[in-house]
Formats: sequence, C-alpha cells, structure tokens
Amino acid sequence: MSLVVVGSMAFDAIETPFGKSDKIIGGAGTYIAWSASNFCKPIKQISVVGGDFPQEELDKLTARGVVVEGVQIKKDEKTFFWSGRYHMDMNTRDTLETQLNVLENFQPVVPESYQDCDFLMLGNLVPAVQISVIQQLRKRPKLIVMDTMNFWMEIALDDLKNLLTMVDVLMVNDSEARELSHEYSLVKAANKILTMGPKYLIIKKGEHGALLFHGNHVFFAPALPLEDVFDPTGAGDTFAGGFIGHLARTKDISFENMKTAIIIGSAMASFCVEKFGTQRLTEITKADIDARLEEFVQLVNFDIDLV
Amino acid sequence: MSLVVVGSMAFDAIETPFGKSDKIIGGAGTYIAWSASNFCKPIKQISVVGGDFPQEELDKLTARGVVVEGVQIKKDEKTFFWSGRYHMDMNTRDTLETQLNVLENFQPVVPESYQDCDFLMLGNLVPAVQISVIQQLRKRPKLIVMDTMNFWMEIALDDLKNLLTMVDVLMVNDSEARELSHEYSLVKAANKILTMGPKYLIIKKGEHGALLFHGNHVFFAPALPLEDVFDPTGAGDTFAGGFIGHLARTKDISFENMKTAIIIGSAMASFCVEKFGTQRLTEITKADIDARLEEFVQLVNFDIDLV
Repeated sequence: MSLVVVGSMAFDAIETPFGKSDKIIGGAGTYIAWSASNFCKPIKQISVVGGDFPQEELDKLTARGVVVEGVQIKKDEKTFFWSGRYHMDMNTRDTLETQLNVLENFQPVVPESYQDCDFLMLGNLVPAVQISVIQQLRKRPKLIVMDTMNFWMEIALDDLKNLLTMVDVLMVNDSEARELSHEYSLVKAANKILTMGPKYLIIKKGEHGALLFHGNHVFFAPALPLEDVFDPTGAGDTFAGGFIGHLARTKDISFENMKTAIIIGSAMASFCVEKFGTQRLTEITKADIDARLEEFVQLVNFDIDLV
Repeated sequence: MSLVVVGSMAFDAIETPFGKSDKIIGGAGTYIAWSASNFCKPIKQISVVGGDFPQEELDKLTARGVVVEGVQIKKDEKTFFWSGRYHMDMNTRDTLETQLNVLENFQPVVPESYQDCDFLMLGNLVPAVQISVIQQLRKRPKLIVMDTMNFWMEIALDDLKNLLTMVDVLMVNDSEARELSHEYSLVKAANKILTMGPKYLIIKKGEHGALLFHGNHVFFAPALPLEDVFDPTGAGDTFAGGFIGHLARTKDISFENMKTAIIIGSAMASFCVEKFGTQRLTEITKADIDARLEEFVQLVNFDIDLV
C-alpha cells in the first residue's frame, strides 16, 4: 500500500497586500507532500527539480517519510519558478512571471518501487503528464484524485477530457468548475462534470469553503474564519494533501469518509495561509491539527429537532 | 409572550438575468412575517402602508396569525416602492428606483396589546424608527434582534451607533460588516462590532452562508447549494424571520439554540429565492421545511475521530 503524489516542486516569489516573500520553496507537489505526511507514510513523490533546488528541502521531506526516488534532479537545468501578486480579497491574484524551466519537457518516470500505489494524487500539472503516470502504473490504484486548473482547459482540453475519464475524484475551484461545464450554477456545473468521468467532484471556494458532490449527494465544508490570511499560495494543494492523506491512512473511500477527509483538508489549508509558503506546514504538530479539527467541529456542529 | 416584528411592507419590481416581475408585494416586514409565522404565533406586526396596499395581503397574514393592529394604513398616500436589477452573480444588484412614499414620515406606534413583547425583530429601516419602537416598549424584551444596511451607515451613523447599544443581536451582510468596522477580515470586523453593543453578530454572506459570532465563539451555516437562484429579494429578511421565529417558539436564547435558529433561517431563505417575491413562502408546508432542514443536516454533518 502506498500513496503516490505527482506535482511540481518549485520556487515561488509572492506579494500580498501584507508583505512580500523572497524566492521560497513552493509547488503543488511540495505542499501536498508536507500536508499528507501528517497522516500517512510512505508518500512516494513524483516530480522534477533543477540543480538549484536545495538538497536540504528534499532531506526534510525524506525525514517525514516522503520517498523522493521519483523526483528527477536535472543538474544542469533550473527549477520551475512562479511569482504572483494577490489582490486585497486574497482570492484573486495576478501572475507576474512564470519560468517553466525543468517542467517544460518533464517526462515523469514511475519507479518500480511505486507500483504498489493504492492512492494516487495528481497535483495540478500538464494533463499529459498526469495521464502518463496513470498509464505507467500496472495496477489501477484504488483511488485516483486529480487537481487541475483553467489554464489546461484553455490549451489542453482534449487531454484533460480524456484524463477525466480515468480518475475518481476531480478537484477544481469554483471558476474552473464554471469554465469546464459552461454552467454558472455550481449545482448544475457539478451535475455536468459528474457525467464527464469523475464519480466525485470537489469544488474549492477559497475562504468560502468547499463542496463535495457525488451522485445526488452534496456535502459542504466551511473554511475556518481567520483573523488574517497571510498568504493563500498552496492552500488548495495543502487541502488536497490532507484529503488524500486521510483517505490513504484510513483506506476507506466511502462518501462518508470523504466528508471527513474534506474537513481535514480544510483544517490543513487553514494552517497553510497563516505564513508565507510552506513555513507553517513545517511547524505544526499533531496537537495543533487536533485542536484545529475541534474548531471545525465547533464551527458547524448543531442540534436540530425537526419542527 | 409575543414576537413583535418591525419592518417595511412594500411593492417591489424585480429584474434578474432570468426574468422580470410585475409590481409585487415585498418589504422586509412582509418577508419576516411570512417566514416567522411558520414557527410561532401570534406575530405582532408594526409597519405602514398606503391606501394602494391590497387588503387581501393583510388578510393573508392575519390568517397565518400575524396581528396587523400596528400596521398603519395611510389611505391617501402610496406604499413604499423599490425596483432593482440583479447581476449575473445574483449577489449584487442595482437599485433602479426608490419611492419612499409612506415611509418618508413613518412614526411607528406600538399598540398597547404589543406591550407583552418578549422577542423584538427590527427589520431594516431608518435607525430612528427602530429606536422609537424600543423606547415605546415599557418592558425590555428578552431579545432584540436588528437588521440594518450600508445606507444607514452613510446617512445616520450616530443613530445607528446609539441603536447598537440597545440590541442583543445585529444582522448585517459581509460588506456592511466591513463598512461598519473598517476591517476587511470578517473575524476582525466581528470582534470590533461586538464591542459596539450587540452580544451576538450574524454576518450574512448570501450564497456563501452565514456566520454567528459571540465572544470567542463562531458558528457557520452554509447556504443550500441550489440549481437555480431565481430571485434573491427578501432572502435576508426571510432568514431573519426563521431565526427569530425559532427563538420565539423555543424561548431559548442560548448560543447553542441560536446555531439551530441560523440553520432554520438558512433553510427558509433557500425557499425564498426559488420564486419571485414572497410567492414560494406562501406555498411551503411544514413537511417541506422539515425535508429542507434534513438536507442541511446532510450537507454539513460529518464524523471525525481525531487523528
């Protein structure tokens, strides 16, 4: 049994209304691994970095039970770099610069030791790369979860649609759900997307929480109301890491357990936004996570006797 | 014991991306009364209408247990009229026309038979009118809930601040909470507003649900994800009616019971938006409400064993 995570490992430079970071460690795969490693081991990582990526960052992940055999290091190339600036609402952002670097010709290779994959988390990447990983696995994982973004809907829609037929759970944000379905109502969007392949759809709404759709069922998890959102970068990936980490730990892929997994993902995301980059994720303890989960229980728990 | 409701009774003309209404019955007081009357009787209404307001609308409310002794009928004047147009997101709207008419010089008069008021719901109105009702009550109600809007923050802030010191629960939407507190973060906004008088603050976020703040406690109720939002007019007032109606029925003003009341308010609001104006509220049965409440339980209910 193992959890395989596919995703970028990168450098980010971030500006928010409240501050500005240096060039710091980022990437969907990084956030997912930090988040999921609170819940299960080993995590088998697939990614690519340049010779400029600090070995100590890989070592820190290894120390948490993340296997990096599938992380290609291209010594003579540079790591993927993204810089962006958030608006006052912290829900919208402008990309200032993107340097694809090693991601430009990334050919993922699934190591033999990853063939025991039961849970596969496909972080946001070129759909062709996500497809390649699925195709390299000889045994179909018990659960395949994928994240994607509007960019791929615009330049790789055919691949993306093909990929959708191969996965169990799709994660997108609200505007991406609308773009993919051409429906404004999220309920209508969900109904349409659930005919495109995935049996489960998670729509992330940032500070407004997340919805899980499955058949005619819908579940809602709020985001924790926070005094300050310092840096939203990676919150969605951190959410994904908590979600898949909990499912892989419990080996239970029922709709009921996915509800719990979404709450756990939301709790993890609420830590992520408290500091720049992955900083906060590297600090939190099991006790911090338990306390935060208790806050979620208090946040939504109510008693009702029908009138 | 009684519930007194203060609020406008009006004519509205509404345009949405999906349709356009004739001049139909509206007004905060109308929506609150229709909604609350599912939960408790009598409801003692305070309002003002012109000679053009249909007697049958008052009769329909009377049939539901709404006492209209405190509704002034100014035979030679016209009823308040509002028309507006909603944007595609259904969360923002433009006012096309406002005719204050009878509201311009409205002096509320609390009938002697209303002096047993235990629960007072102050629908959105001029703060001076809301204050006048409180001052006319010889015994301080067990609970005073008020709604207001940004307009009064701009033209009657001193009255509004004075009023805030007299009430228990304030209901505003997210942009109003930000405007009143000069804080962007809703948690910071809530902390500040809770120093201005009210012990409880409800921040309504439309399709994104509602938050209840009290001391260091926070509770979140989602809005039900709907295929179609047909007309959001009155949803906030309908929410208020369900909230105060449940509290008045149960006579329990604990924080725990307010959580339940917010869920009930959210359920009522989810009906309101399904048709133009008060139409849907006049149709629903107890069984409809119970079924909708069960949907809310399903929407947010989860099990968690701390990791």
